[in-house]
Amino acid sequence: MCEANAYLRRGNREELVLEAVDKLIPGPGQITMINIFGEQKILKAKILELSLVDHKIILGENND
Amino acid sequence: MCEANAYLRRGNREELVLEAVDKLIPGPGQITMINIFGEQKILKAKILELSLVDHKIILGENND
Repeated sequence: MCEANAYLRRGNREELVLEAVDKLIPGPGQITMINIFGEQKILKAKILELSLVDHKIILGENND
Repeated sequence: MCEANAYLRRGNREELVLEAVDKLIPGPGQITMINIFGEQKILKAKILELSLVDHKIILGENND
């Protein structure tokens, strides 16, 4: 399986917010993620970087 | 390897724009992608959806 883990970057730290993300849908000011277990999470965040070979989605806080 | 193919959605069609994307970095009004072969592509686009289990990144034209 080729899902990725989503991390929220806060300063120098990266906190795991959802593992094994399959779907990610950006919306206005927020991001909806659904993982392979069917868990859904909506965060006020934006995508900073995807690094798919490393299975990482890096999100940043949305200050808009 | 868990890279994904990037497609640009135009109306009902999805055109392949870059295969085997590893890194994707959104910037103001554009997206930078680098694939596992080291090819880099910069597109005026935004992320519409990631579907990682299907290895798909769906982009949309950026009309901002």
